[in-house]
Amino acid sequence: MKNILKAGIAGVSGYTGKEALSILLKHPRVRVTYVAANNTRGRVDGIYPEFLGRTDLVCQKFNIVQAVQHCDVVFLALPHTESMRVAGKLLKAGVKVIDLSADYRLKSTRVYGRWYGRQHADVQNVAKAVYGLPELFRQKIKTAALVANPGCYPTAAILGLAPLVTAKTSSIISVVVDAKSGVSGAGRKASLDLLSSEVNENFKAYKVLAHQHTPEIDQVLSKLAGKKMAVHFVAHLLPINRGILNTMYVHLKEGITLGQLRALYKKFYKTEPFVRILPSGGQPEVKNVANTNFCDIGLAVSADGKMAVITSAIDNLVKGAAGQAVQNMNIMCGFTENQGLL
Amino acid sequence: MKNILKAGIAGVSGYTGKEALSILLKHPRVRVTYVAANNTRGRVDGIYPEFLGRTDLVCQKFNIVQAVQHCDVVFLALPHTESMRVAGKLLKAGVKVIDLSADYRLKSTRVYGRWYGRQHADVQNVAKAVYGLPELFRQKIKTAALVANPGCYPTAAILGLAPLVTAKTSSIISVVVDAKSGVSGAGRKASLDLLSSEVNENFKAYKVLAHQHTPEIDQVLSKLAGKKMAVHFVAHLLPINRGILNTMYVHLKEGITLGQLRALYKKFYKTEPFVRILPSGGQPEVKNVANTNFCDIGLAVSADGKMAVITSAIDNLVKGAAGQAVQNMNIMCGFTENQGLL
Amino acid sequence: MKNILKAGIAGVSGYTGKEALSILLKHPRVRVTYVAANNTRGRVDGIYPEFLGRTDLVCQKFNIVQAVQHCDVVFLALPHTESMRVAGKLLKAGVKVIDLSADYRLKSTRVYGRWYGRQHADVQNVAKAVYGLPELFRQKIKTAALVANPGCYPTAAILGLAPLVTAKTSSIISVVVDAKSGVSGAGRKASLDLLSSEVNENFKAYKVLAHQHTPEIDQVLSKLAGKKMAVHFVAHLLPINRGILNTMYVHLKEGITLGQLRALYKKFYKTEPFVRILPSGGQPEVKNVANTNFCDIGLAVSADGKMAVITSAIDNLVKGAAGQAVQNMNIMCGFTENQGLL
Amino acid sequence: MKNILKAGIAGVSGYTGKEALSILLKHPRVRVTYVAANNTRGRVDGIYPEFLGRTDLVCQKFNIVQAVQHCDVVFLALPHTESMRVAGKLLKAGVKVIDLSADYRLKSTRVYGRWYGRQHADVQNVAKAVYGLPELFRQKIKTAALVANPGCYPTAAILGLAPLVTAKTSSIISVVVDAKSGVSGAGRKASLDLLSSEVNENFKAYKVLAHQHTPEIDQVLSKLAGKKMAVHFVAHLLPINRGILNTMYVHLKEGITLGQLRALYKKFYKTEPFVRILPSGGQPEVKNVANTNFCDIGLAVSADGKMAVITSAIDNLVKGAAGQAVQNMNIMCGFTENQGLL
Repeated sequence: MKNILKAGIAGVSGYTGKEALSILLKHPRVRVTYVAANNTRGRVDGIYPEFLGRTDLVCQKFNIVQAVQHCDVVFLALPHTESMRVAGKLLKAGVKVIDLSADYRLKSTRVYGRWYGRQHADVQNVAKAVYGLPELFRQKIKTAALVANPGCYPTAAILGLAPLVTAKTSSIISVVVDAKSGVSGAGRKASLDLLSSEVNENFKAYKVLAHQHTPEIDQVLSKLAGKKMAVHFVAHLLPINRGILNTMYVHLKEGITLGQLRALYKKFYKTEPFVRILPSGGQPEVKNVANTNFCDIGLAVSADGKMAVITSAIDNLVKGAAGQAVQNMNIMCGFTENQGLL
Repeated sequence: MKNILKAGIAGVSGYTGKEALSILLKHPRVRVTYVAANNTRGRVDGIYPEFLGRTDLVCQKFNIVQAVQHCDVVFLALPHTESMRVAGKLLKAGVKVIDLSADYRLKSTRVYGRWYGRQHADVQNVAKAVYGLPELFRQKIKTAALVANPGCYPTAAILGLAPLVTAKTSSIISVVVDAKSGVSGAGRKASLDLLSSEVNENFKAYKVLAHQHTPEIDQVLSKLAGKKMAVHFVAHLLPINRGILNTMYVHLKEGITLGQLRALYKKFYKTEPFVRILPSGGQPEVKNVANTNFCDIGLAVSADGKMAVITSAIDNLVKGAAGQAVQNMNIMCGFTENQGLL
Repeated sequence: MKNILKAGIAGVSGYTGKEALSILLKHPRVRVTYVAANNTRGRVDGIYPEFLGRTDLVCQKFNIVQAVQHCDVVFLALPHTESMRVAGKLLKAGVKVIDLSADYRLKSTRVYGRWYGRQHADVQNVAKAVYGLPELFRQKIKTAALVANPGCYPTAAILGLAPLVTAKTSSIISVVVDAKSGVSGAGRKASLDLLSSEVNENFKAYKVLAHQHTPEIDQVLSKLAGKKMAVHFVAHLLPINRGILNTMYVHLKEGITLGQLRALYKKFYKTEPFVRILPSGGQPEVKNVANTNFCDIGLAVSADGKMAVITSAIDNLVKGAAGQAVQNMNIMCGFTENQGLL
Repeated sequence: MKNILKAGIAGVSGYTGKEALSILLKHPRVRVTYVAANNTRGRVDGIYPEFLGRTDLVCQKFNIVQAVQHCDVVFLALPHTESMRVAGKLLKAGVKVIDLSADYRLKSTRVYGRWYGRQHADVQNVAKAVYGLPELFRQKIKTAALVANPGCYPTAAILGLAPLVTAKTSSIISVVVDAKSGVSGAGRKASLDLLSSEVNENFKAYKVLAHQHTPEIDQVLSKLAGKKMAVHFVAHLLPINRGILNTMYVHLKEGITLGQLRALYKKFYKTEPFVRILPSGGQPEVKNVANTNFCDIGLAVSADGKMAVITSAIDNLVKGAAGQAVQNMNIMCGFTENQGLL
């Protein structure tokens, strides 16, 4: 690793790619040396005028040879089913890869095929990929060549559920994840459903009990629990640009007190730089985590202690995508974990 | 009853009072003869310029004698704990009362005292009040002198849960109501929490497992179930003006198919003018019910049939307040139920 | 004309077409007998679930023969350059036409060609078309077979400027129209620029001094002034669904007092049902005209009386499109002018 | 000046104070040593949970002695008429002051009294204060002890107008500033007008031709022009949190081409780190400057060259307040001007 890390971004024209660029341009240890996209060309500050005066980078058509030549690490902010066509080649050439798509998250390619509608094209690297949730898998990330950056909803859900699922596995009757996301989570595509006139002053559930992030949550929670877990997951579309808030209902056989629950969470995340357990009675708000890499967590318990309500909030583009990707990069490269993220 | 009903509104300066006025001004069988408020005086079109050219009404300090003199029916859009000080006097004078506050909703004045922080001042009329949810209590509303107009969250929750709770009482393990409301539900009061800068681009849960609408939902569901029901209710604040969407998770002992669930709901609401069971796969959206008296309901079931997810959407100011109040008035006065509401 | 007017809508899948349908479904003198679109088929309540339970209409591919067969009047809510291909045929068959596109607004087909990029295909009917701004051209509308419904910005601009331009023609040095519109004004098309993530929390000017509504404003003002008028028009995109507010700066050679200005406007619009001159010091707000056919006007004057600032607000989909179209229909058919619009 | 600058903030509970804190916490040359407010006490992360894990600072009641003891520089983010009661004492004790209120902006205390309704309490320091717009007054700021940080609207207006007013003074017939601001510009106060339900989906002009920022703009433009200038200024309230966009209409006696206008602006701001003249045809958007210290400027000219339309956009809390204040601090302290601001 040279002194300054050379980073590339494939898919810079999308919202997560743009966010990655925005973060990396301020990172003291990184130089962005290569940006590419599938259908967009030209100066980045022409595509996104917010970069005027901040960078002279020119967006190329993505090309493996060039990426390898210019980069130590490449962030793949490509649509699902596209990353798996290029990650392997980058890895083979010795380039580290942080994939922000879903392509390397699910360990079962059968499950992948069912939810993403395409047979997996790089089965070999699925096995090698490390799931990039630092709070749970930091040690493995340190030595990973390929990190599967978690989905936005799963990041908020897993961080919110991990301590309780780990500690009270056998007591859990059911888990409901009622998830709400700002509209940037849907990406930057010209779709009638995402028009301002349709989203603004509106609210709705979508993909009810059928969202592709469900198996990702189940996979990680099952690993933590040491047995098969299956959450009931419903996504909703918020009329805001950024932010996810998940409200999670864990029905328990044996009651727990709020004090016990809080102690569990405080201990679990004791040394984490980006997880904040709110003071007693506090509830996370999307605005408090917007444009940050924090995950805020609030806790409540029913009178009989058998229904725990955990709320977690993140910025879907930062901790839910590009920020967490940079956090993973920091870990992979031996940088301070929060560098460029505060 | 004369040919044209003379209606008064106490609390016209608040959002529900304003909405009631807006609806009643277009009602073919009604003349609004009296509008009042506690702290606001003067022409209504001075308070709310949207009424310019639509009415010459002048807002008075609320006065029982004047209200009785001018009105056949009075809508009380007053803050909680104020309605109970005037409703009795209006009733005694033969004026019908539709109370949009919470004062007459809970049959147990002990429970009322616990949630609303004040001893009830009109215990006698609590017993006589009819809970004004026409879909469940239409017959009683017809002859009621005092209607307790349901809360906004309870309207959406109860309409969404009633068919399933009624049909599958003994199978229910738990009920979660994850409720989201636009900000007009909080009323028109100068509070830092309700500032545009705090609400806009934000989202949060509030009064988690501690919202005063919980006992109202429990009371009605318990009545339907014939046994004590207790939902887990969490409210959230949406950055929109109008609308509620409740996502409700009913955990069942025995599985149910989506077809069975749909059949249950279609039958239950077969003749209802304001409840729309969406086509299979359809999900309610706040924009589709905004400014209407409709309640839209969507249905989904987990693969094993043991988790039913019911979503219901209303306009909190219309079906959740003033529109339902006018619906109740129509029923009480023998008018066509949807008059002035389409 | 039969007792109940049979109305058709071409382009019901767009926002103005939908709005026209919504208004006409409540109109006591109208039955909507035919709805059509270019690329959308099927039940209207499938396209727009807000119509569930309100209509059984089925959207057809637009067909002249069917339109003629089913309708007394047809509202053309088609894209510009499409209306001119069908209006003539409807007129020939004796069907009245209210065109909500720009095709028949400009009397000079040369100017039309320059701004709309297409040669006009129905020059003959351009001459016959009446510009449907009732406040200025009511008499002609009464007997018109073809009404060119005004643009949204021009409606707000012309209503705001007409009294002053008429009375002080020779004193005017310059006119600036700083116009702001909600996003529904851009129509319902899948465009990156109109995505919620791009519009929300954003604001920008567009088509600066180059908006196609400019010649429409100039044409009408020039007619009123009896000499060539040319405004400086800049459009802006507001992050709201509905509403236009125009702030207009009229620089005068001779000063005018606020009292004189107000007197001018009060007199000019004395009997108008849909124009509201706000009380002294009052300023129009978009929310006060949203979902109504009103145009609210505010007036201010600089200390030296030489800069008059007129603000006007409308709902771009109602007074700026479908509501005004229905107002025109009422006039053409001898109905009360505000029927179905209050 | 020690190696690390000790900075204090009075009025940290307001939006500009909070923004100043947020920026200064990331500034490599600064330590925030003191935060205070008038009516708020306690940990900053209790007042604003977004600061959890970012600072342990505790908000005090403002006290001059403590401020002097702890700070090299104090940012006064107090309401107008309060800063002038404390700035003098800080200055006397050798503390540098950057005042974000209006108290030291207007050189004429008579004009100040007329617009702010209070006699000025510190006339002596008004004369010494430097108007903190670095692009125009950088040299004076370098040695200033007291900087009057410009108002948000004036920053956008003056930066947009300065090159043209300077170069074409004698040609100017009139200047219109049509200004639009997000709601955080109104500060954090519990007012009905600022409620989400009133602001959201709404838009209006306010203080038409009567906004207190008018004399501030006039003062600076007059200085640039070398003669009395008076703009016509109208403010509008945007339903967004952050951002100002001013559309400015300069009516000229002699025509100018777009090329000439662009050349003028490019040259004027050639070396400025925070002013971006957009490429030809480009228009500033609020989202491109949100959360940055940039001012983006767009240019257009009418066909006859006599109406120049200049659009400028800033973040009202950053370049319009706290960011510019930090820029001034950097200049006053000999730091790199953009440190902590990129």
